Amino acid sequence: MKERNISGENPEKEAAGIAAAGLVSSGMVVGLGTGSTVAYALQELGRRIKEEGLEFFGVVTSYQSEMLAIKAGIPLTSLSQHPILDLAIDGADRVDSNFYAIKGGGAAHTREKLVSMSAKRFVVVLDSSKLSEKLDHYVPVEILPMARELVSAKLKELGGKPKLRLASRKDGPVITDNGNFVLDTDFGIIEAPEELSLKLSAIPGVVEHGIFSNVDEVYIGKQDGTVKILKKKKA
Amino acid sequence: MKERNISGENPEKEAAGIAAAGLVSSGMVVGLGTGSTVAYALQELGRRIKEEGLEFFGVVTSYQSEMLAIKAGIPLTSLSQHPILDLAIDGADRVDSNFYAIKGGGAAHTREKLVSMSAKRFVVVLDSSKLSEKLDHYVPVEILPMARELVSAKLKELGGKPKLRLASRKDGPVITDNGNFVLDTDFGIIEAPEELSLKLSAIPGVVEHGIFSNVDEVYIGKQDGTVKILKKKKA
Repeated sequence: MKERNISGENPEKEAAGIAAAGLVSSGMVVGLGTGSTVAYALQELGRRIKEEGLEFFGVVTSYQSEMLAIKAGIPLTSLSQHPILDLAIDGADRVDSNFYAIKGGGAAHTREKLVSMSAKRFVVVLDSSKLSEKLDHYVPVEILPMARELVSAKLKELGGKPKLRLASRKDGPVITDNGNFVLDTDFGIIEAPEELSLKLSAIPGVVEHGIFSNVDEVYIGKQDGTVKILKKKKA
Repeated sequence: MKERNISGENPEKEAAGIAAAGLVSSGMVVGLGTGSTVAYALQELGRRIKEEGLEFFGVVTSYQSEMLAIKAGIPLTSLSQHPILDLAIDGADRVDSNFYAIKGGGAAHTREKLVSMSAKRFVVVLDSSKLSEKLDHYVPVEILPMARELVSAKLKELGGKPKLRLASRKDGPVITDNGNFVLDTDFGIIEAPEELSLKLSAIPGVVEHGIFSNVDEVYIGKQDGTVKILKKKKA
């Protein structure tokens, strides 16, 4: 792939973001994820709008992604107006060899799941540190605040170690864009992500957990500015 | 059972509510449901506090239940302070012969599920019109507002007919006590409630659905002021 514009600060993230931005063509409606790798994609999309006359609509996944999209000059729409998206681009905290992903480090995984599930094609952009054979990352679980004790007990029954995510620039817990809490839950190495996903969804008080089963493609940036692309085989 | 105080306006609901209130003893922490039958239980609990010196704490499931409990003089606590309740009393829109229930006509089923799941014993109070061999009632599904289109599509894939619940004293949809929407979803007669329950939970954007699998006992009020009690056989 072409190596244009790789500035060197985060070459892997930048390369992956720019490559994914190249998937967008005029007329599309595109889900815009959250996080540092997607930020490069949004920047590149802004450049293509200005320099190439690219015309498309974005659907954001968080307040952060909304602000970056506006800064990049991307016209925005919503899932109410466009329930089906042509493409969604987002980052991830971890992706395993079966294309299961863990998201939610930025506490935006609920909206990210809604947006990516609404897309015909879901592309995850990563630096190489986020890849592993099996999911070995804690699972962020967004919960209704009043359900903390009940959900914690159920997560422990499933073998997890839940920890309320605390804010660092406010007292007390992180509050999500939806007004909820996040329990970062360590399950060790996750051998059966699909099974765990269903069990987490069934716990009352869980709004959404960070295991994603709908990744179609992974774009992995490399130090030299090239990008490795992995595509999931369709069943 | 005794027939005291049955006023005649809603003898079935009143009889069931009063009988369930008789389960509360001093020192308990009790989940207090929402709706017209539970209202009779709260009233009776208020009487017992005043006349019999009953002492217990309540955990409410909605703004309505909070106001009625305060009016009845019931001291309140929370799931944070008391994660495990001795008893929960609530109504239901339908209960089938296997003790599966549908709740959510009052749009309070999310908190009702959290509270009842936190209780060692969950007693449902009903008039006889709410009993049926199989669940033949629409399922209220509380959803994140931005997920309406995605969840609607998934509910249709499951054979449901979702309908956004509209408010009658404000423009637009009903907003739950949690700030969300309700999709009342008709599945016809529900042959496999446990299976449907898991499938509904797995839909991204679903906060909580109205199928309850945790009913222990059902108190059914009768026209003559007596109460029929059904107890679930423990597995």
